[in-house]
Amino acid sequence: MTVEEQVRAARVASRTLASLPRARKDEALELIAEALRRRAGEILAENAEDVALARANKLGAALVDRLYLDEDRLRETARSVHEVAALDDPVGEIQEGRRLANGLELTRVRVPLGVVAVVYEARPNVTVDAAALCLKSGNAVVLRGGSAAKHSNRMLAEVVQGAIIEAGLPAEAVAFIAGPREVLLQLVTLKDLIDVVIPRGGEELKELLSAHSRVPVIAAAGGNCHVYVDAAADLDMALAITVNAKCQRPGVCNAAETLLVHHDVAAAFLPRVVAELTRRGVELAVDRITAELVPDPRLKRANRTHYETEFLDLKMAVRVVGSLDEAIDHVTTFGSGHSEAIVTGDLEAAQRFTREVDAAVVYVNASTRFTDGGQFGLGAEMGISTQKLHARGPISLRELTCQKYVAWGDGQVRS
Amino acid sequence: MTVEEQVRAARVASRTLASLPRARKDEALELIAEALRRRAGEILAENAEDVALARANKLGAALVDRLYLDEDRLRETARSVHEVAALDDPVGEIQEGRRLANGLELTRVRVPLGVVAVVYEARPNVTVDAAALCLKSGNAVVLRGGSAAKHSNRMLAEVVQGAIIEAGLPAEAVAFIAGPREVLLQLVTLKDLIDVVIPRGGEELKELLSAHSRVPVIAAAGGNCHVYVDAAADLDMALAITVNAKCQRPGVCNAAETLLVHHDVAAAFLPRVVAELTRRGVELAVDRITAELVPDPRLKRANRTHYETEFLDLKMAVRVVGSLDEAIDHVTTFGSGHSEAIVTGDLEAAQRFTREVDAAVVYVNASTRFTDGGQFGLGAEMGISTQKLHARGPISLRELTCQKYVAWGDGQVRS
Repeated sequence: MTVEEQVRAARVASRTLASLPRARKDEALELIAEALRRRAGEILAENAEDVALARANKLGAALVDRLYLDEDRLRETARSVHEVAALDDPVGEIQEGRRLANGLELTRVRVPLGVVAVVYEARPNVTVDAAALCLKSGNAVVLRGGSAAKHSNRMLAEVVQGAIIEAGLPAEAVAFIAGPREVLLQLVTLKDLIDVVIPRGGEELKELLSAHSRVPVIAAAGGNCHVYVDAAADLDMALAITVNAKCQRPGVCNAAETLLVHHDVAAAFLPRVVAELTRRGVELAVDRITAELVPDPRLKRANRTHYETEFLDLKMAVRVVGSLDEAIDHVTTFGSGHSEAIVTGDLEAAQRFTREVDAAVVYVNASTRFTDGGQFGLGAEMGISTQKLHARGPISLRELTCQKYVAWGDGQVRS
Repeated sequence: MTVEEQVRAARVASRTLASLPRARKDEALELIAEALRRRAGEILAENAEDVALARANKLGAALVDRLYLDEDRLRETARSVHEVAALDDPVGEIQEGRRLANGLELTRVRVPLGVVAVVYEARPNVTVDAAALCLKSGNAVVLRGGSAAKHSNRMLAEVVQGAIIEAGLPAEAVAFIAGPREVLLQLVTLKDLIDVVIPRGGEELKELLSAHSRVPVIAAAGGNCHVYVDAAADLDMALAITVNAKCQRPGVCNAAETLLVHHDVAAAFLPRVVAELTRRGVELAVDRITAELVPDPRLKRANRTHYETEFLDLKMAVRVVGSLDEAIDHVTTFGSGHSEAIVTGDLEAAQRFTREVDAAVVYVNASTRFTDGGQFGLGAEMGISTQKLHARGPISLRELTCQKYVAWGDGQVRS
């Protein structure tokens, strides 16, 4: 089958999926989880080929680690499918409804998007995770994995499709696309067949898709996140939050990259936080005032680039601000609209920060690290979106749906 | 000011607008309505210049009619601003909220998009309507009207800005952009400053924007809508609904373009509906079975093109189908996902049609003509969207907003 034929078949299958009751979808998911356990040997054998090829091609250790599967990782993947089955079905939710003056009963109902394309890179578990989320939300899925994981992906797709057939659902609901970059570029021109494309990978992949896709894109975004320590902050709390937001897992999008400190507490707070962050191996780039308050030779001087950078590493920029306004201005100028935190005991400052900072998630007295579908009680997700249209925040089951109005009448005509 | 400077100023103003309580926004809207009444003479004088130029340039009568303003039309525009003021404020709605296990109080709040660009053609009242909807939803607006209405638009923008200043709000919140097509194309590259662009005009404008805009587009769509008369339909009701859906206002997107009739009722229904539609001046293009059942020489034979066409006129295609499945297949193949109606007394048929037809609005026993923000109780709108992401159905106040998560903590860090 050509790519277009595969996608067309997925579109036909999507009509079946859209009407499925939850029990049928959950059954399919449990069969996928079971098949992953049962066929672990075959999967790991295919994965070993990818890993061997990657090593032979001298791919980096980080990439090889992303590729690599073992019993534990496979068990974890199966468990996450089981968890998706346990989530509420988003489809069929009546979002609102009323009887109009003319007697029409109008409801707004949550329905699947239709066909979701997921484009990813080295991690083979995305094959399974994406298929599970799309199935649960009643969507057909077109999977396009990276070439480095091609054996693993093909095998995992086969396992998923086998389970779907076992569940009595159309195997075409999970389409697996392989082939060179041209195939990907062809895929994202099929705007009448695919409803949304979700890239899961680096900036390069996102750029490629946003430049070439005719299909709407929802992209998991990077995060240039801030912790602002207000004049009225509890400084012990501020220290704990700053350290957690920076150090608990520095390589992820909801880690903080810049610390803003109100001038009134700078002298009391900065020596403590600099000592603690430095002790934990964080490299700091600081403004002039901080450098004066904390004369530590290990501190670099910050320039504009530091404030613009998502380090994804044990690095942090620091700046003293004269007011809440200046803090909000800094966040507005440099923030990427992901996760922003204020530490304060002052209600007005908290209210202004939550209202005026334009981001997917705004925190008062909590670490930015909570921005996550699981933490928010939304279950698994495909990353955090910082775009404003359709999806803002975790891209979870709900973001894989849209709405439909249904109007029940008894002969109403418009006059 | 350059276009970019104007948009940048609108972006700054949007921060003020986002936090405004409803009373301040409604006050500004009432001042706009009042100014439109007070300055009617100036507005109509500028409009007369546009109309005179249009006539001198031999523009078509339909275009001149769209351009033309008089006391009545202006009063109607002012009244619609007053009606927008009366609508609920969408901003600040808590869409959901819960306390997480760790004590974080997480809410999802409705917030403005930020800066909305509205690109339109001849109708000068869009200047006012768009400004009112954007202000009410807390957004700054960038207006880019057609050149034929340039005097009217400039005057209306001045009136709106005057009222906004009078209300103590930043005048930059309503930016008015004039100039050639290159200016429009430049405008839609400003993706870091504009959150969404909404075209209000013909297909050509929409095509231009979807091809060139780097800013996300929400477009009001055309509609290839169907009425399906099921085997179990009440045929009097089916006749009334078909006639209403086709004839009540044939030039709009929610008018029906194709009539599908179940084979079992074709002999009883088609002679009646053909006679009634023909009597009302509707030109019919019919399939072979219909032509055999109703041997009327005025009936054309339908081909694929007829089923694909949004006539926007007193024209309709007719087809007999053998089953509900065939009807749904026809709608899936030819429909544009706008408004689709089934007429039936059979619950299962109604349920299958509402579930399986993939459209913005699906009707049971009612005319497609109800698809409208006002009819749905949503107030004024900027057209009907058939896209699935973000906005599906009427583009009203809610569609000019997005969401933000706000989390209130007391020192939570992630472990």
